[in-house]
Amino acid sequence: MDVSETNTPHSKLRPLPLRDVKITGGFWAQRQRLNHHVTLFDGYKKLEEAGNLGNLRRAAGMSDEPYRGPVFMDEDVYKWLEALSHEIGNSVDPELVGLADKTISLIAAAQQPDGYLNSYYQVMAPDQKWADLDHGHEMYCAGHLIQAAVAHHRATGGDSLLNIARRLADHINTIFGPGGRDGTCGHPEIEMALVELYRETGEKRYLELAQVLVDRRGQKRMVGLGPYGPEYHQDRVPVRDSHRVEGHAVRQLYLLSGVVDIYLETGERALLDAAMRLWHDAFTGKMYITGGFGSRYEGESFGEPYELPSDRCYCETCAAVGSAMWNWRMLLATGEARFADELERVLYNGFLSGYALDGRHYFYMNPLESREGAERPGWHSVACCPPNIMRQISTVGHYIATRTGPIETTESGIQIHQYISSTLRAGKGPIGLSEGTPRTLSLETDYPHDGRVRITVDSTDGAPWQLSLRIPAWCLGPQLSVNGEPVSPAAAAGYATIERTWRPGDVVELSLPMSPRWVQPNPRVDAVRGSVAIMRGPFVYCLEETDQPYVSNLLDVRVDTACTLQENWDDDLLGGVMLVRARGQLEKGAEWAEQLYAPLDEETPSGTELTLTAIPYYTWANRGSVAMRVWIPRAT
Amino acid sequence: MDVSETNTPHSKLRPLPLRDVKITGGFWAQRQRLNHHVTLFDGYKKLEEAGNLGNLRRAAGMSDEPYRGPVFMDEDVYKWLEALSHEIGNSVDPELVGLADKTISLIAAAQQPDGYLNSYYQVMAPDQKWADLDHGHEMYCAGHLIQAAVAHHRATGGDSLLNIARRLADHINTIFGPGGRDGTCGHPEIEMALVELYRETGEKRYLELAQVLVDRRGQKRMVGLGPYGPEYHQDRVPVRDSHRVEGHAVRQLYLLSGVVDIYLETGERALLDAAMRLWHDAFTGKMYITGGFGSRYEGESFGEPYELPSDRCYCETCAAVGSAMWNWRMLLATGEARFADELERVLYNGFLSGYALDGRHYFYMNPLESREGAERPGWHSVACCPPNIMRQISTVGHYIATRTGPIETTESGIQIHQYISSTLRAGKGPIGLSEGTPRTLSLETDYPHDGRVRITVDSTDGAPWQLSLRIPAWCLGPQLSVNGEPVSPAAAAGYATIERTWRPGDVVELSLPMSPRWVQPNPRVDAVRGSVAIMRGPFVYCLEETDQPYVSNLLDVRVDTACTLQENWDDDLLGGVMLVRARGQLEKGAEWAEQLYAPLDEETPSGTELTLTAIPYYTWANRGSVAMRVWIPRAT
Repeated sequence: MDVSETNTPHSKLRPLPLRDVKITGGFWAQRQRLNHHVTLFDGYKKLEEAGNLGNLRRAAGMSDEPYRGPVFMDEDVYKWLEALSHEIGNSVDPELVGLADKTISLIAAAQQPDGYLNSYYQVMAPDQKWADLDHGHEMYCAGHLIQAAVAHHRATGGDSLLNIARRLADHINTIFGPGGRDGTCGHPEIEMALVELYRETGEKRYLELAQVLVDRRGQKRMVGLGPYGPEYHQDRVPVRDSHRVEGHAVRQLYLLSGVVDIYLETGERALLDAAMRLWHDAFTGKMYITGGFGSRYEGESFGEPYELPSDRCYCETCAAVGSAMWNWRMLLATGEARFADELERVLYNGFLSGYALDGRHYFYMNPLESREGAERPGWHSVACCPPNIMRQISTVGHYIATRTGPIETTESGIQIHQYISSTLRAGKGPIGLSEGTPRTLSLETDYPHDGRVRITVDSTDGAPWQLSLRIPAWCLGPQLSVNGEPVSPAAAAGYATIERTWRPGDVVELSLPMSPRWVQPNPRVDAVRGSVAIMRGPFVYCLEETDQPYVSNLLDVRVDTACTLQENWDDDLLGGVMLVRARGQLEKGAEWAEQLYAPLDEETPSGTELTLTAIPYYTWANRGSVAMRVWIPRAT
Repeated sequence: MDVSETNTPHSKLRPLPLRDVKITGGFWAQRQRLNHHVTLFDGYKKLEEAGNLGNLRRAAGMSDEPYRGPVFMDEDVYKWLEALSHEIGNSVDPELVGLADKTISLIAAAQQPDGYLNSYYQVMAPDQKWADLDHGHEMYCAGHLIQAAVAHHRATGGDSLLNIARRLADHINTIFGPGGRDGTCGHPEIEMALVELYRETGEKRYLELAQVLVDRRGQKRMVGLGPYGPEYHQDRVPVRDSHRVEGHAVRQLYLLSGVVDIYLETGERALLDAAMRLWHDAFTGKMYITGGFGSRYEGESFGEPYELPSDRCYCETCAAVGSAMWNWRMLLATGEARFADELERVLYNGFLSGYALDGRHYFYMNPLESREGAERPGWHSVACCPPNIMRQISTVGHYIATRTGPIETTESGIQIHQYISSTLRAGKGPIGLSEGTPRTLSLETDYPHDGRVRITVDSTDGAPWQLSLRIPAWCLGPQLSVNGEPVSPAAAAGYATIERTWRPGDVVELSLPMSPRWVQPNPRVDAVRGSVAIMRGPFVYCLEETDQPYVSNLLDVRVDTACTLQENWDDDLLGGVMLVRARGQLEKGAEWAEQLYAPLDEETPSGTELTLTAIPYYTWANRGSVAMRVWIPRAT
């Protein structure tokens, strides 16, 4: 689940409960409205059409429709229900509440008296329960149910779904708990769910179950599909001994999220050390500029360091969600800005590219180059991504801020990580309890289109505290003022921190210059050598063929990096975007068309000049299926 | 099969029977000796160890060992037996003859009374014969048996294996012949085998069977494995309507070889037109500089045009064999030098890289870059490649020359396509019949290490005829003399042709300058932008980490293309190779190690100078598993 709410002392930063954050306008409010009014309802329809709900009805004995789809169909319902629950918390809607209650009743009816719940095994293979841990996805689906239940409980206070989840978790614990059967799930996911269930219920057995499920990995017992080894299932090496991210990217990233969750509750340093090593491996060698992960179609897997092809990368939308979850937990554990930076990168690029502007179409893979264009499907036969997008959109408010405590110490403060128009309430006591006057703030901004952010202190107690504002690593020359007076606080480790005795009405203004800029790749990355990318603020840009009227093959375009990038807001295009224009050339590819290789002395004729128009990467493939590229070869 | 022997009028060039060509020394004689004395015997051992021979014994009722391996295990035996047969023809060896006879007896014992023969179905699924044409590989295996039988018949004159093959072909014809069951094999191969069986036996029904098996393709009836569509099985579009090479590369290339074989016998223009269109698509957009094909691991398939990653290309050794077979047939059909050029490219690079210098290890995939090195296995669980290498090596003499006729016309002549030390005999009548004095030649050369070729006319009739010598497209400034006198014949369409009344003892000397040279890729190929390759003669070169003592990461190497490439023969290295040295730089990758992407204005510090040593690509991975790359980034 995207939302981790914890009071543990190992969480260097404390999250704010989602109910204490309200997004009030701007970029994400627009997306939450789309999610609320279009995507969630469309999702319910798709879950009906694809058979997910029918499978549960069949399991409940309410119909005799045949089971449809792969073994893990239930999880799509649960992730959708989790998103729905968060959204009920974000903005009251009886229609959503009705959908949730109806679906919870269905799930309740499907659950067995012993707590077991999985429509595939109940309908198709009742004697095969827990027989194929490698591929059965039973704990994976259970994890998603648990996350939905915790979200529903937090949003509504009701325990109808939470009771179902607890019975299922207890059932699993009976079989697989400490001292029980020595197995774990082929697809990590339940670990973070169990930790969150522990947080929500206080029942330590859920945490302990999560621990043993992690501890049992790395014995090479699980065999991958086809030619893939045990790394596919995250079973090649024990977590604490691992030195590289490998295998199926989503499984690896989900596992690491759960591992950091366990660290946050137990403080077991070896787990955080492993997560730090793997983070270094992932983010210095295997990450796309969009924040995407998964260099290979084969096994939907990571590649070698610096293996980052633009065209055949997998970059699954779920891997982007996994990276966001992992970075969020790393941020909580360490307080280091780099994790918030990477969360921002993936959120605005590799994640958001999976969500069409109409709220009804998706991408499973998010390549950085498409020679022939790509059609966004309205749903997938393996539909993990669409409901993952829904729950990520519904919980994005969670990433805005954290607090530190305890009060009356110099570390007492509020940290702003993501700039989103919102109101924030940071109680002083543990989550769920408030002592005295809460500290409340309002953020107003047009971020990520504009770098100016205005923060008003709406209420506060009388004690001094620190307000820390993340200065994104991409930003040069930020400016800061308090009540109109420029201030120059030490920007330590990515945060500008102001400490004072705040008064209601105090206004902090932050300006993050976001002119478009050129970015170059590490020279070890073969796939994009001699090319540059354009970024502006957190957005990675791309060229889409639609915007290049004189180009018949996007492979022939070159960009002149000596030019100054021009920006131009277009309110009518793609929901409102800042276009970026550059001077470029159209290479005469025709001379080359008949040969793939030529002597070096045959010089390529210089091209004709033209203007190139770039759009934010996340908006591509919303105007039909045409060629696109993020990395643009440099004119030489 | 590699060897097509035909008298059809549609064959613009006529092949010489393999028995009329003897390789007498040099590069290929060395490899044929290795194949003869090491690889074929080792192969027999591996076929025993892997279970292939045991499967046939079980099918023959001679043992009760369990069936082992995938469904197509028989084909490995047949390809090995084909290679063995060719090699018996090349150089008499009672031990090889004994092995052949023993294996043929085993195959005879395994064949059913009705002619059916396939150990997998006979042992494992006797009621499933011909039930799964998509994946069963029954006709595929049969095709390999037929090719082995034709080879054995030609080499020995014996019909023990040919009779088995005819009975199997007749059995298949009864079921799938014209008007019979409307099916074809998921893996093309039998088409070219049946055409060759027609050539060998004169029985037209084999040609007609090949025709209907091709005609039935393209109805989208065959479903690929996993996510692959009907293109995987070459069933997306009818052959005559196809415009691009697609799907599984080996299947596509085998199919095209069979299609051109059918054209050669029937003269049906639509087939050659389709082959020409697909050749253009393949060789102007999808071929690696090594001649390799298959840009994707997924589906072992072709990619889009210009999708040519160096690291994750498939470039299966069998695809290289397929390309050689296809180009050979295109050459026969058209007489155009470009097909001989491409045959040469793939033979010396993408094919030969699959064969270890010790004659006992192989590569299945032949990437152009390996960051971490690769181990050559001694055999494969899917072992199609090793015996394909054996039969290719044993038949390489076939590619040396062709003849045109009929005698007494101006087109009468001999064409030399590949420069290999050998004696050649071009009879004037149809294949297998000789009229009057044959024309015989001796070739002496150290090609491909040295570009000088000496051709002596050993015997000839009194009529004038044309001697045509291919001038490789890579060669600038060839020189030619007859009996010591320089001549400057018109080099039309890739051939230098001398017409005269030859006398025994006439000597033609050809000199093909082969200084090492830089090659650049088409700018549409993203994967190797800003990089160059080194070639010398037909060889593509590569850098292997072993030869770069001061380099700890081959990704940090740059080459200075302003330098003059130096060559240096090393007799002791890798069986004797011409090393090529260039001036280069070692980039300071360390500064970059902590970031994948950086602002463009952060200039990469210039590197330290060093000398780079390149070896022929085919020799890589013979000194342990270390990093390798063909394309070298240019220092800027």
